[in-house]
Amino acid sequence: MTFSRAEYAARLEGVRAAMAEAELDALVVADPSNMHWLTGYDGWSFYVPQAAIVTGAGEPLLWLRPMDAPGAYLTAWIGRESVLTYSEELIQNPPRHAFDSLAADLAAHGLAAGRIGVEMDNYYFSAAAFEALKRGLPEARFADATGLVNWRRIVKSPAEIALMRKAGEITASMHRAVREGMAEGRPKHELVAEVQRAAVLGAPGAFGDYAAIQPIAPSGVEASASHITWNDRPMARGEATYFEISGCHRRYHCPVSRTYHLGEPPSILRRAEAAVIRALEDAMAAAKPGALCEDVAREVYASLARAGFEKASRTGYSIGLSYPPDWGERTMSLRIGDRTELKENMCLHLMPGLWTPEWGVAITESFVVTPQGGERLADIPQEIFVAA
Amino acid sequence: MTFSRAEYAARLEGVRAAMAEAELDALVVADPSNMHWLTGYDGWSFYVPQAAIVTGAGEPLLWLRPMDAPGAYLTAWIGRESVLTYSEELIQNPPRHAFDSLAADLAAHGLAAGRIGVEMDNYYFSAAAFEALKRGLPEARFADATGLVNWRRIVKSPAEIALMRKAGEITASMHRAVREGMAEGRPKHELVAEVQRAAVLGAPGAFGDYAAIQPIAPSGVEASASHITWNDRPMARGEATYFEISGCHRRYHCPVSRTYHLGEPPSILRRAEAAVIRALEDAMAAAKPGALCEDVAREVYASLARAGFEKASRTGYSIGLSYPPDWGERTMSLRIGDRTELKENMCLHLMPGLWTPEWGVAITESFVVTPQGGERLADIPQEIFVAA
Repeated sequence: MTFSRAEYAARLEGVRAAMAEAELDALVVADPSNMHWLTGYDGWSFYVPQAAIVTGAGEPLLWLRPMDAPGAYLTAWIGRESVLTYSEELIQNPPRHAFDSLAADLAAHGLAAGRIGVEMDNYYFSAAAFEALKRGLPEARFADATGLVNWRRIVKSPAEIALMRKAGEITASMHRAVREGMAEGRPKHELVAEVQRAAVLGAPGAFGDYAAIQPIAPSGVEASASHITWNDRPMARGEATYFEISGCHRRYHCPVSRTYHLGEPPSILRRAEAAVIRALEDAMAAAKPGALCEDVAREVYASLARAGFEKASRTGYSIGLSYPPDWGERTMSLRIGDRTELKENMCLHLMPGLWTPEWGVAITESFVVTPQGGERLADIPQEIFVAA
Repeated sequence: MTFSRAEYAARLEGVRAAMAEAELDALVVADPSNMHWLTGYDGWSFYVPQAAIVTGAGEPLLWLRPMDAPGAYLTAWIGRESVLTYSEELIQNPPRHAFDSLAADLAAHGLAAGRIGVEMDNYYFSAAAFEALKRGLPEARFADATGLVNWRRIVKSPAEIALMRKAGEITASMHRAVREGMAEGRPKHELVAEVQRAAVLGAPGAFGDYAAIQPIAPSGVEASASHITWNDRPMARGEATYFEISGCHRRYHCPVSRTYHLGEPPSILRRAEAAVIRALEDAMAAAKPGALCEDVAREVYASLARAGFEKASRTGYSIGLSYPPDWGERTMSLRIGDRTELKENMCLHLMPGLWTPEWGVAITESFVVTPQGGERLADIPQEIFVAA
């Protein structure tokens, strides 16, 4: 088990407190990150219906495809009797839906007329899943509990911070692979291959896991696009490439972006680089307990404005445990209007990047909130790396 | 562009025919695989709301987060005027939802009272997204169009088959990395690192892309679990490990599982190996145009039964273009009750694997349907590989 029994018990207790506040009899957790955080269950099984169910007492239940029950026995702390399965016949076999079976299981647990929280806005709770639950439990009342568990995750435990620092060591190793491998004329996928190798080799004492987002690595004009991955085009002199990548250890992430350039960058990139690095410093200095998320965002915007650059969009978000397709925690954001108060041991990915139709500079940091301000979770040179 | 204009036009025409049959005025396509197949759009942006919209005439529209529009300009064949965006403010900012904005856009396109198809059972169409559409378009009628586009994709074009063969070459290279790297006492993640490197290095003339499922690689007792990924445990003499992995080229996949063993396998594994390899042969021989999916499944079950093994669960599925979290196409399955008729150039992943609580043997093939039966898309030795 990755965490102690006591830590899992505390998590469950906190979720139950939030459920009580929302007047929920049960919570259906379809987000695999939340499932893992509550039970320890790990496996690439989230492409089929599955959920954790929290009721008012006892262990959480895991509700899985039959062939995934053995994976739960191996990875989750709950007892075998807490693992429920549905019929294999329900896999990708419309008009039947696996959530028809979950509805029956919930009714069998006395929840037919209960008030049930569901994560309405999650990749793993489709519109059809909700329709099946409503059809199968006509007497139940459903409440939107999107983010209920996620918001319980925002302050990390010491054990979680330790995993995130390990992920940060892996991220550093991945960026080292970029620095060592970038060369004029080299097809970019050959470089990404070395980055992926470093991602899994990991760091001393920490094997690398798959990240929830695969490498984002646009070059040249592609760098105006935010989420281009990679291709086989040879890297060219005069082109910037940015790598937005994260190491992952036991599902915890530490994303960090850096900008690379073949040959000396033009002066506008150097000006943007200085402005972004300064904005990182200014924002992290302000990221102390008691500051609001929007305060930190304002530091970014003001710092960039002093250097003559304008930015108004979201400039960061909470990070931690995650599964594909997003390594963000989907709770607080660094932007105007987010008045979440920072607390010690929250972790955020700070992104004061600048993009224009012609160029982009991405230099970001993942940090943990400390009484002295934001402390970097990975130690990676910030400057644009100039490859010969 | 990966495909010709004519191929994209034919795809669109086919989807419009299916829409007409379902009496749809518009189709909202939130599945990134379907979006890519229709428009060519590629990027790791599916963790935020996005869709392609097909109406009765004209190009498909792409509806994206503002920062992803440049990626569409670079990768999609549609004109810039066909790319719509929503406000960045709507990103992860409840109670507002990006699909509120899509509802307004659909209304502006004359669809306020239209009959609109939505992919009800898709990772990227959450219950909240559907609620937002219904709220914003109270006069519209919604129809479940899950799989409408997917079913148009089941017969591959020659250009698609060529990409899948390239993906198969990459899969072969990944399995070669396993054979070359497996050694007693080696932490498994070190071996997976080499597999991931091979995945991206690709094959001659075909760079490797990220696969929609990351390596499944359980060892020993873990092999009783179907979807365990990897960890840092040293590989041990007497243990079986199976690798379920796929190369990916331009989003096309060719998954193949093989079983590896450190030291000579016990006789039960050898018996299972022979049975599974025979079942592959028997099923592929039957996979000719005109056969039904359930016919092929019956061949698997009957062949295994002749060798004394019982299997009744789904034993394969359609494959092709995909994004995380699933490389299956989510159309036909090889199981009793699926009466889809096979046609030339359909592609399936055939999985006659055997699992018990004590051991598992996974030997699978991805194949294309030809008049002579199933033809393997990757050339990889089938036998259990015995590492010294």
